[in-house]
Amino acid sequence: LTTATILGAGYMGSAMTFPLAACGLSVRLWGTWLDDDLIERSRQGPHPRLRVRLPASVALYDSSQLEAAIEGADIVFMGVSSEGFAPVFERLLAVTEKPLPVFTLTKGFCQLEGEVSRTSVAARALFERKFPGREPVWTSVGGPVKAFELARGVPSPAVYASVSESAEAVAGELRTSYYRIRTTTDVAGVELCSALKNVYAIAPGLCDGLYQKEMPGNYHNFSSLLFTQAIREMVVIVAGEGGSPDTVHGLAGVGDLYVTSQSGKNQRFGALIGRGMTPEEAYRTMYDEGELAEGYLAMKAGSRWLAGNHPGLLDELPLFRALYAIGCEGAPAEASLQDLVAGFV
Amino acid sequence: LTTATILGAGYMGSAMTFPLAACGLSVRLWGTWLDDDLIERSRQGPHPRLRVRLPASVALYDSSQLEAAIEGADIVFMGVSSEGFAPVFERLLAVTEKPLPVFTLTKGFCQLEGEVSRTSVAARALFERKFPGREPVWTSVGGPVKAFELARGVPSPAVYASVSESAEAVAGELRTSYYRIRTTTDVAGVELCSALKNVYAIAPGLCDGLYQKEMPGNYHNFSSLLFTQAIREMVVIVAGEGGSPDTVHGLAGVGDLYVTSQSGKNQRFGALIGRGMTPEEAYRTMYDEGELAEGYLAMKAGSRWLAGNHPGLLDELPLFRALYAIGCEGAPAEASLQDLVAGFV
Repeated sequence: LTTATILGAGYMGSAMTFPLAACGLSVRLWGTWLDDDLIERSRQGPHPRLRVRLPASVALYDSSQLEAAIEGADIVFMGVSSEGFAPVFERLLAVTEKPLPVFTLTKGFCQLEGEVSRTSVAARALFERKFPGREPVWTSVGGPVKAFELARGVPSPAVYASVSESAEAVAGELRTSYYRIRTTTDVAGVELCSALKNVYAIAPGLCDGLYQKEMPGNYHNFSSLLFTQAIREMVVIVAGEGGSPDTVHGLAGVGDLYVTSQSGKNQRFGALIGRGMTPEEAYRTMYDEGELAEGYLAMKAGSRWLAGNHPGLLDELPLFRALYAIGCEGAPAEASLQDLVAGFV
Repeated sequence: LTTATILGAGYMGSAMTFPLAACGLSVRLWGTWLDDDLIERSRQGPHPRLRVRLPASVALYDSSQLEAAIEGADIVFMGVSSEGFAPVFERLLAVTEKPLPVFTLTKGFCQLEGEVSRTSVAARALFERKFPGREPVWTSVGGPVKAFELARGVPSPAVYASVSESAEAVAGELRTSYYRIRTTTDVAGVELCSALKNVYAIAPGLCDGLYQKEMPGNYHNFSSLLFTQAIREMVVIVAGEGGSPDTVHGLAGVGDLYVTSQSGKNQRFGALIGRGMTPEEAYRTMYDEGELAEGYLAMKAGSRWLAGNHPGLLDELPLFRALYAIGCEGAPAEASLQDLVAGFV
């Protein structure tokens, strides 16, 4: 490997420039049509979101320069949000002559022509239109890797999920002293964990918002119940899709839910609702500050995906149902969580 | 059930008076010879540790009144520390005519005549001396239940582990709107989780101490790695003892480790070391404030227990080994954790 191109110059795409540059790769960062300002400002000073300067060796490309950004690249990282995934992946395919190995950092479900699906499933459908009969070389990246910390060299364990034979060798080339990589073949498990933890991290956030004022630091028994229930439900969903419970119990599940529950955008989204905002107000407030509450989108998309693919599972997902009722059906947060406790046994 | 006696008037024993009184039981709280002051002060005002008044209906007994505290009780809760377990259990046996169902809240390994063992194993040995040929009716209580919160009615999920036929029925009688109980037959699993989480919660505490100043709130990728590794190692140990990985992945394992990692005495013990104290200094500092860093004791006892019972497992427990090296062999905290990351893959 000599050249890596990252698509998407938000938090995660930009943070990946650090370990990739540290590996000695030639790194290119392309910003989408929403990122032109981020790219422009990153040329002059710190990346506006990460608040540190990107490595000096990173080449920056604005949204008009996709072709140049891809030219000669050996691998591509998809660093866009779940909403941006399909349109950006289509543009990527439009400018590529031969299939490139794709590593996706996108967490969440994605929509393609009105259908909600796992990212890798949507990507495969698009890939086959462009390269009929070929197999995509695909890796889903999960694990507890907050971008803000990755950009500062905090030890960060990623999980690379791929069925490609080359996956292990590539992972070996991308490891640094602080960016650690475990590999697995459970693409469905890693992808679902990455999407679902954004939904479930809203639950400890709700707890924070509801109780932080009244009993600061003293409702951990309750948030621990919600955390453990989230793991239980993620096992149900992942197993339903043919993935492995081990994935949920490892870094991609427990690990990523842990880090997301401590802090981050989805925890904050929950906390704002817990403090009294409606979900729409919370989403808007964050959006206006440049923060995307992906868990809110993943909740809506995940609900549709479950209804379409695993309708029988919803009975086993009381926390998911409660979060959906709070987030999308106007149910009161505190009463809904209390009901969950009452039904707990 | 009409009468419950709790032995030990520290955090957990005293907090249990709340749900038991809420169930309509006649509740007696007996303090050990270390607790006379706690009992005395709880007669006049708030419990000194919990900082709330105990329910008015609770009868208080000082260390000289064990016989009266036990007289006519239907069940006994052991609410003493792991160090106090064997001596208090021996006293209990000395004053009982017939075997009483025992529920133990004690978390940790215990020592009996120089031997380290699981609490239920030591208890059985003592029980058989007093009641040869009889079966003890035993329940190990685990799960994410911080005493401070339980005393304030925060929803708290306990796990009751017992092989007794009556366990489910008793649990049914002890549930309240906020004290929820799941039952299992995996006594070894619940007991080991309860002991080990105190050891492993030192790890996120070390992270807090090492990095909180420098990057407040921004080393969660690293603590998440440690958290997930702890779960992995708890599975190794529990499975080695014939317990179930499901126990580790549920409330007694993940749930209790989650709550303990967020706050509590063992997290604090780790944080003090991370900020520069030696383990002995940290232990003493806390001890002088009336706080017992049980994880430090459990680390030493657990190490002896592993060496004696499962010496082959230590190879699979790099985090346990690192914590032991930091806690008991003078290894530097930051370098030891960094080594762990390097060995992570």
